Amino acid sequence: MLRLHHVPLSPFCRKIRIALREKGLAAELVEEQPWEQKEEFLRLNPAGETPVLEDDGLVICDSQAIAEYLEEAHPEPTLYGRSLEQRSETRRLVAWFDSKFCREVTDLLWREKLLKRLARRGTPSSEALRQGAANIRWHLQYIAWLFEDRRWLAGDELTMADIAAAAHLSVLDYLGDVPWDAAPGARDWYAKIKSRPSFRPLLQDRLVGLKPPIHYDDLDF
Amino acid sequence: MLRLHHVPLSPFCRKIRIALREKGLAAELVEEQPWEQKEEFLRLNPAGETPVLEDDGLVICDSQAIAEYLEEAHPEPTLYGRSLEQRSETRRLVAWFDSKFCREVTDLLWREKLLKRLARRGTPSSEALRQGAANIRWHLQYIAWLFEDRRWLAGDELTMADIAAAAHLSVLDYLGDVPWDAAPGARDWYAKIKSRPSFRPLLQDRLVGLKPPIHYDDLDF
Repeated sequence: MLRLHHVPLSPFCRKIRIALREKGLAAELVEEQPWEQKEEFLRLNPAGETPVLEDDGLVICDSQAIAEYLEEAHPEPTLYGRSLEQRSETRRLVAWFDSKFCREVTDLLWREKLLKRLARRGTPSSEALRQGAANIRWHLQYIAWLFEDRRWLAGDELTMADIAAAAHLSVLDYLGDVPWDAAPGARDWYAKIKSRPSFRPLLQDRLVGLKPPIHYDDLDF
Repeated sequence: MLRLHHVPLSPFCRKIRIALREKGLAAELVEEQPWEQKEEFLRLNPAGETPVLEDDGLVICDSQAIAEYLEEAHPEPTLYGRSLEQRSETRRLVAWFDSKFCREVTDLLWREKLLKRLARRGTPSSEALRQGAANIRWHLQYIAWLFEDRRWLAGDELTMADIAAAAHLSVLDYLGDVPWDAAPGARDWYAKIKSRPSFRPLLQDRLVGLKPPIHYDDLDF
């Protein structure tokens, strides 16, 4: 039995929820408040971070470690690709979204607006919000550029690259922070992944007192 | 023929240099100044970051993607371990050092002191230096704690976890920023990895105008 400890509006947790469903794996979801740093959770992951996956007593921490674990334990369908070249391109883009995009966009918008609210730690920095809003535009253009010649971001098959990118964008979209008009190609790609059955459960998450924009769970937005 | 584009005192590049040697692979080293964002380098890696590995025309970007590529293309000797459990523990600790340690220590010391100097972008923030110097102490204690019951950080074999940790600590040690006295167990582990042939070439790197402390390349420090 798989059990995923997660935060519903965390991009790294959403990445694993989508990957699990794309692999056809069911998991029990346990909601965590990692910012409370409770002893029980720290025993599971000394880093005090979500996601954490439990698989019959085995505890796997960190979203990249979990994604690579799922690929090794359940190779089909592959979410990295079959050739070394394809797998490198997938991992390059996973790093792009989980590191570069995260640093330049997610940290400046989602962390400032949502995480500070959830953890009750101060108010958003307006300079961070301004910078994040500027940065997201060229990242959307990069997505559109990749999608011009490919069926998915890393090639002709859906991979962890799409899943990582969509996970970040989905939480930003909940906050109304994605200027889709700036890159119609990125919107087309997002509409494609958003309409997959693996994505639907995410779109049901609601945070008390913070509604997403109307287009958020509209598949033909 | 393998070619590695790198920055000599970057932890992420050092990680790959050590991994290559542990795998018994020779690579041509090309020194880069990624902060100059030259077009030729951006064509190789649009993220504008080192390390980048070229392998007979195939270009692999991002240190985690490169490490996983090396493991898939040259499985022996393994640097992740053989069981799913061992591989997950290795990846958990790689994420610990490349994300958590990096955010809490490397970014606050190395980035402030060295990267700002190399890129000629401002002077170090004294608040960052103070915070980094405080944080490194408990990370060293965590290393010492892991090493108490294990021959290496992730278990009884050398893995990418040791290599990632040592890569970060080696650049901080160059700057004289590792309070080894705070955790003798961490010093014992570092002396062990530092004495491997794969580590030696790193200890030869010198930055003009910035000498490392005397103990830096002393194997019995």
